[in-house]
Amino acid sequence: MKAEILCVGTEILLGDILNTNTQFLSKELANMGFSIYHQAVVGDNVERLKNEFKLAIERADIVITTGGLGPTKDDLTKETAAEYFGKKLIFDEDSYTSIVEYFDKLGVKISENNKKQAYFPEGCTILKNDYGTAPGCIINEDNKIVILLPGPPREVLPMFKNYVVPYLKKYQEAVFVSKVLRVVGIGEGNAAEKLQDIMDRQTNPTIAPYAKDNEVTFRITASAKTEKEALDLIEPMEKEVRERLGDNVYGTDDTSLEEVVGKLLIENNITIATAESCTGGLLAGRLVNYPGISEVFMQGAVTYSNDAKIERLGVKKETLDKFGAVSSETAAEMAEGIAKTSNTNIGVSTTGIAGPGGGTEEKPVGLVYVGLYINGKVKTKKLNIPGDRQKVRNRVVTIALDWIRRETMRSNNASSH
Amino acid sequence: MKAEILCVGTEILLGDILNTNTQFLSKELANMGFSIYHQAVVGDNVERLKNEFKLAIERADIVITTGGLGPTKDDLTKETAAEYFGKKLIFDEDSYTSIVEYFDKLGVKISENNKKQAYFPEGCTILKNDYGTAPGCIINEDNKIVILLPGPPREVLPMFKNYVVPYLKKYQEAVFVSKVLRVVGIGEGNAAEKLQDIMDRQTNPTIAPYAKDNEVTFRITASAKTEKEALDLIEPMEKEVRERLGDNVYGTDDTSLEEVVGKLLIENNITIATAESCTGGLLAGRLVNYPGISEVFMQGAVTYSNDAKIERLGVKKETLDKFGAVSSETAAEMAEGIAKTSNTNIGVSTTGIAGPGGGTEEKPVGLVYVGLYINGKVKTKKLNIPGDRQKVRNRVVTIALDWIRRETMRSNNASSH
Repeated sequence: MKAEILCVGTEILLGDILNTNTQFLSKELANMGFSIYHQAVVGDNVERLKNEFKLAIERADIVITTGGLGPTKDDLTKETAAEYFGKKLIFDEDSYTSIVEYFDKLGVKISENNKKQAYFPEGCTILKNDYGTAPGCIINEDNKIVILLPGPPREVLPMFKNYVVPYLKKYQEAVFVSKVLRVVGIGEGNAAEKLQDIMDRQTNPTIAPYAKDNEVTFRITASAKTEKEALDLIEPMEKEVRERLGDNVYGTDDTSLEEVVGKLLIENNITIATAESCTGGLLAGRLVNYPGISEVFMQGAVTYSNDAKIERLGVKKETLDKFGAVSSETAAEMAEGIAKTSNTNIGVSTTGIAGPGGGTEEKPVGLVYVGLYINGKVKTKKLNIPGDRQKVRNRVVTIALDWIRRETMRSNNASSH
Repeated sequence: MKAEILCVGTEILLGDILNTNTQFLSKELANMGFSIYHQAVVGDNVERLKNEFKLAIERADIVITTGGLGPTKDDLTKETAAEYFGKKLIFDEDSYTSIVEYFDKLGVKISENNKKQAYFPEGCTILKNDYGTAPGCIINEDNKIVILLPGPPREVLPMFKNYVVPYLKKYQEAVFVSKVLRVVGIGEGNAAEKLQDIMDRQTNPTIAPYAKDNEVTFRITASAKTEKEALDLIEPMEKEVRERLGDNVYGTDDTSLEEVVGKLLIENNITIATAESCTGGLLAGRLVNYPGISEVFMQGAVTYSNDAKIERLGVKKETLDKFGAVSSETAAEMAEGIAKTSNTNIGVSTTGIAGPGGGTEEKPVGLVYVGLYINGKVKTKKLNIPGDRQKVRNRVVTIALDWIRRETMRSNNASSH
């Protein structure tokens, strides 16, 4: 079945609030196996609301609206839906009692306007609002299901989960199961190219790429009668994707790169310390995202100045003078310095020009060196990263984490052979 | 003039990502005086995209799309717009060169697919993408303006601000000028209460509060015939707001808290070092957001383990044994320790339980101590912060930065009296 979401509210149109309801509802509906082809937002205006409502209901089997159930004159969603189906609005005593009680609890005097919130299209199913004054309702007529929800997310979420999901269960045709493969170290274009034929012939399961925060994800989604059957459909495609992308696939679903790195280090009892210049603590911050990292993450140093690099890490003054702070040589001494002074197996360093200023022809903005000291040896990586300061730094952190992951896996494989 | 926003992307329809582009674009367009009556989202599907595009362009004078400019076959926005206006897609050599250069910088091999991103509807204005591979474009035909932007917000924001806003200026009917006052150290509710009567009687200028990332902003917007007139309207309201909120107002427009702190430190020649436990480098990371901080930011230490606190900062073992790592006493020794070992005027420390685990009845998740060593004295602050790990840590960083700001201003005022 096809579902659409129509949000009503001038404050969304003006960009005063972020439309989180649509994301929430879409995700929930997609997980239940309904197809969503349109999302729309319209203001508190009779004609435009009518037109948009008509478009939605002609295209979809299920239309979910949010907003426009308030007590004021420009709250018109119930009126619009009732008119479309030729229904009268009827006063509901129980709902009014709930609204009165809600105001009593708050110690606020109810206004005459609020009475409007207790009127509903004849024959509809009323949805109790446990977190606000505006009840919702479901109209099920002519093979169309129209679900009217309030606007505030803290009212929409519980109303949907507690009352709408159980109502829609009987309309679910299939179980949809998704698995997300998380990929790092390869661009979206290249990754997609490697999977082009799979993506071209996709039916069930489907596969969709998405690039975000220096990573690419591939979502494989299968529909079937049972969860087990859906998982069985996903398995061979997942296997194929993993074979083609190799160890660029670092995890699945909500796993973060720092979690994978953290677990690898802990499992193999490998300790780590960080020495950051251009990333200024963001690498340590990412590692510390993973609770439990304290077992292996011994120290982080943010050594932004040359003095700090010398004093804290033992970088040689000659190295800085001869090669500069942004150099392979400095990155190497930083990585080795932090590992030795913190007595860890791994030392990782960053030094570069994150911009916006500070670039030269020889060393432009975006030039970054990452150093990695591991198993008594130090290696460095030279990067040229386009983008603004924030983007450069975030990308460096991802590349550094990925490098730690690969080297840890490698040394682990080597030692177990 | 009427404007509409049409986002293209199955990942938005499925709720995989939050549609922040629409909010950003709506706000910008509203501030420029354009009317927005519809926002819509459609997937990567030829027919539905065509229909939705047609609806939008028939209703509005300006249609802005995001997404669907990528390198893959289901990226179809340019094709759809070109077809609507009966235009051919033409290869643009310059754009292709830029894309090739972008990939070169990344050290990533360009894929054949990416060539698609250098084709544009005949006669359009190409919008350079400084932060990604997909250039945008503007088609101005038959009294309709169609603006095609990429999908990722990081690319959309600068492209819109740098290239689209200047383009649309000549179509503006009134000048709208906004000034944002940035407020920290007071909640949205309390701040709004102090400004209630101003907010109640607002007409031109308007004033709108917005809470984000532990800060509150008040956007004052005036419309007038000229920018000068609009600024004159804003001035008295700004003065009134500043008087009521006092030094909670830390800056305006895009000024960040770390920028204000950085400038204060540099102006007064005050050096600083950080010692972080629960925030794990995020405080240093925020400071380093401000380019030029290296003049005063000497060292940052991430001392997540007790051993690191002892070895790097000289926290006494007895202190840790008696009061625990999360204590006022430990925070104080950390702040003093980092300042003395880094030879700085200020030392700031964080230690706390960011969750999700690790809380006890006596020391629950969200309990955090911040230490501040300044002018030879050390103070600590006890915080109880609700929310998840990420929220707790970000809030601690903001509170610490604000504390540094206030203390630096105070010691500066004291010494100049």
